Amino acid sequence: MIRSVDVPVLVEQSRAGMPRAIGRLISLVDDQHPALRETMAALAPHTGGAHVIGLTGSPGVGKSTTTNALVGAFRKAGKSVAVLAVDPSSPFSGGALLGDRIRMSEAATDPGVYIRSLASRGHLGGLSVATPQAIRVLDAAGFDVVLVETVGVGQSEVAVAGSADTTLVLLAPGMGDGIQAAKAGILEIGDVFVVNKADREGADATVRDLRHMIRMGEGTAPRGWRRPVVRACAMDGTGIDDIAASVGDHLDWLAASGELRRRRTARARDEISALAVAELRSRMGDLGAGGTLEQLAADVVDGASDPFAAADALLESVVG
Amino acid sequence: MIRSVDVPVLVEQSRAGMPRAIGRLISLVDDQHPALRETMAALAPHTGGAHVIGLTGSPGVGKSTTTNALVGAFRKAGKSVAVLAVDPSSPFSGGALLGDRIRMSEAATDPGVYIRSLASRGHLGGLSVATPQAIRVLDAAGFDVVLVETVGVGQSEVAVAGSADTTLVLLAPGMGDGIQAAKAGILEIGDVFVVNKADREGADATVRDLRHMIRMGEGTAPRGWRRPVVRACAMDGTGIDDIAASVGDHLDWLAASGELRRRRTARARDEISALAVAELRSRMGDLGAGGTLEQLAADVVDGASDPFAAADALLESVVG
Repeated sequence: MIRSVDVPVLVEQSRAGMPRAIGRLISLVDDQHPALRETMAALAPHTGGAHVIGLTGSPGVGKSTTTNALVGAFRKAGKSVAVLAVDPSSPFSGGALLGDRIRMSEAATDPGVYIRSLASRGHLGGLSVATPQAIRVLDAAGFDVVLVETVGVGQSEVAVAGSADTTLVLLAPGMGDGIQAAKAGILEIGDVFVVNKADREGADATVRDLRHMIRMGEGTAPRGWRRPVVRACAMDGTGIDDIAASVGDHLDWLAASGELRRRRTARARDEISALAVAELRSRMGDLGAGGTLEQLAADVVDGASDPFAAADALLESVVG
Repeated sequence: MIRSVDVPVLVEQSRAGMPRAIGRLISLVDDQHPALRETMAALAPHTGGAHVIGLTGSPGVGKSTTTNALVGAFRKAGKSVAVLAVDPSSPFSGGALLGDRIRMSEAATDPGVYIRSLASRGHLGGLSVATPQAIRVLDAAGFDVVLVETVGVGQSEVAVAGSADTTLVLLAPGMGDGIQAAKAGILEIGDVFVVNKADREGADATVRDLRHMIRMGEGTAPRGWRRPVVRACAMDGTGIDDIAASVGDHLDWLAASGELRRRRTARARDEISALAVAELRSRMGDLGAGGTLEQLAADVVDGASDPFAAADALLESVVG
């Protein structure tokens, strides 16, 4: 059963910072609820104010600990922060652990912090559609920073989260040298690199390798931003202020260079395309049930039509 | 550079059984050539005569040897056979090896046999679009049997080949018991099961496990067809006639039960849907280059539109 939703009220309450309203809007995203369309239209005029930061890295590099520490650093600087976990391996994403995490964290009772995981996988478009929508909810709710935690790189479902304003890539010593980082494709997506657990053996080598690979790949990055490699130990807070400072520098550069608008337009382009394809698939499904696709398929089987002509007819009846 | 193509002549020649014309048509498919649309329209009235047999299994179970042996059995029965290899691990698919294979085979100089691999991966839709198109070429060319060899199960790109009229699933002893087969999802797709290398240790157990799992899953299969488990040793020809007989029985049952038409309609439905999505993506790409998508994205960034409204506008300008 679909619960009825008063979208204008929820949007107003979420913009007033009411966590329950924000939570219900994110649930609409997670469920790909029919009211989502109305919600996105209502939120549109209020978006664009948040600095969207992507944080990614392989399991075990310390993403959640770093996220926690960064939330503290941003709060110290007076910024409100929303965390969106789309990492299935994250403790944020696992029901009970999520609760533990929040209880553990100083953030638990701080109204300037909101933490939420995304799960929607069964739906058309999955996380590639849901993630930007959830970001949009948190952006419109007025958070200064939206921190999106994703696992690894290269998974198409969560790749969209890599098109944040600023992408933080976390590595850890012994988790792979610079060459492996290059193979994993993370050199291209990172704006700020963090070698976490920098007290461990091999940290110097990882930092050196990474710097070398970044220099070699300089041609691929936008001009004017030298991608820093920050040493950190999120567990005891070492280097966290350095990460926050680098992220702030990056935002300044994004705004001054025009790259911010370029990135956001690219992100919107991907989001629109993904939605158009998801919408098409959904309408095709409806047409399948309604008999249109069935009839087109029968025509193809009978040799009365060919698949291209049938696909055109399908597109037309789907959109017309 | 795109070579110009005289589609009506190629279609006529391919229907007269000229291997070079058939080869050029399949190359059009492999390249997703602009003339493909005209080609499919010209072939449409001539399709539907071939028995399309899918042959699948993990690497190492003996797919190519079995294919070779089956080609011999079909020829002995007076049937012409086309083999389409969409298995990247198949010797049919690897350039030099393909040549060796054909030279090795008795089929090399037999005009009733045609062997070809498909490679098209870089294109929109990839093998999921190309495979049914290639089948269509071979079907219209008049082959009695079109045998499609695919690797494994569950890869979305080649899964479409699983919607053949008849699907043969190959296993080998020690390659996994019935439970693993169930996990791999092959119980659902097989119409005839072959335990190849049946002279090896463990063959009895594999056959027994498989029969057990098939009985347990009986509810999921169409009524009226008891899926046989055939023991074979393709290397020395043992059991090959049994496979051919089971495949023939299955075709008789398909025709008599109406399941043949049902399956072909389902296959056409999938093909049409995949083409519609590929076509949409391609047109969206064109619109991106033309500035429409860029403008829609800019509107979303400015808060003047939301992604859903933009996706609708995109769909409309793409199809209208």
